[in-house]
Amino acid sequence: MSDLKVTATPGTSTIEISRTFATTPERLFHANVDDEWQKKWLGPDIYKTEVPINEVRDGGRWRWTQRDDDGNTHGFRGVYHGDPSVENGITRTFEYEGVPGHVSLETLRFTDLGNGTTRIDVTSAFASVEDRDGMVQSGMEGGMEEGFVRLDKLLADS
Amino acid sequence: MSDLKVTATPGTSTIEISRTFATTPERLFHANVDDEWQKKWLGPDIYKTEVPINEVRDGGRWRWTQRDDDGNTHGFRGVYHGDPSVENGITRTFEYEGVPGHVSLETLRFTDLGNGTTRIDVTSAFASVEDRDGMVQSGMEGGMEEGFVRLDKLLADS
Repeated sequence: MSDLKVTATPGTSTIEISRTFATTPERLFHANVDDEWQKKWLGPDIYKTEVPINEVRDGGRWRWTQRDDDGNTHGFRGVYHGDPSVENGITRTFEYEGVPGHVSLETLRFTDLGNGTTRIDVTSAFASVEDRDGMVQSGMEGGMEEGFVRLDKLLADS
Repeated sequence: MSDLKVTATPGTSTIEISRTFATTPERLFHANVDDEWQKKWLGPDIYKTEVPINEVRDGGRWRWTQRDDDGNTHGFRGVYHGDPSVENGITRTFEYEGVPGHVSLETLRFTDLGNGTTRIDVTSAFASVEDRDGMVQSGMEGGMEEGFVRLDKLLADS
């Protein structure tokens, strides 16, 4: 049972996402920056994710690709602002290569709720309301939760 | 006489800035990425600007410092998303070191208006309305225009 909350207030250009996981901040941070973990849980169920670039440091670049059974492939890319850490979280730019030039800024923060649970808070800041609405209408929320459910299982099994 | 326009619609978390310069897109782009130019025009008149880091490429880092006559120094830093170019513009993250953790995403685009004039359009996307309002209230607009007026003169004199 997930407590996923997605907020996209009309007229603004941000998306706020929060969700609790049964794990520590350290493990949840690791799952979000380690490419072996990312490959296993990121994205909707119908895609196989690869992580061809993963430079986890200030100015480091990242790139994911997601490929379905018919060979359709989507690429995503960006750079890290600052050195990612459990304490300061992760700040990175995000661009879908299918719509180049529409870049957003994503921050991920990890809050220890005690009893082995951690809340992740993600904020995506877009350059316009239209860019933000485009992301919401892409079906982002469903695909994201599919990934989060796979992450729940990975965290429980390892 | 400047046509500077700054738009910060209440309830949103973006700032949009546009201004025309009597120069070509190529020269205006250069003035925004070359550290010798940046030192001469960036920031309010009371500060001396230095550019200790200027890696103009995808994932490259940048850092500016601004120092007044009393030695008070302000630092700003970020990374470039994508390779900056006249055609695609400049996309970079922006953080004032005095308020760490409040990162915004800045895009600069250059439009040739003909007759040797070029419009710059800058969009800053913040993670919250509060962050955006904080930037507006810092007196950003006045300091920015002081810099732009110095840039007008540099472009005319060189």
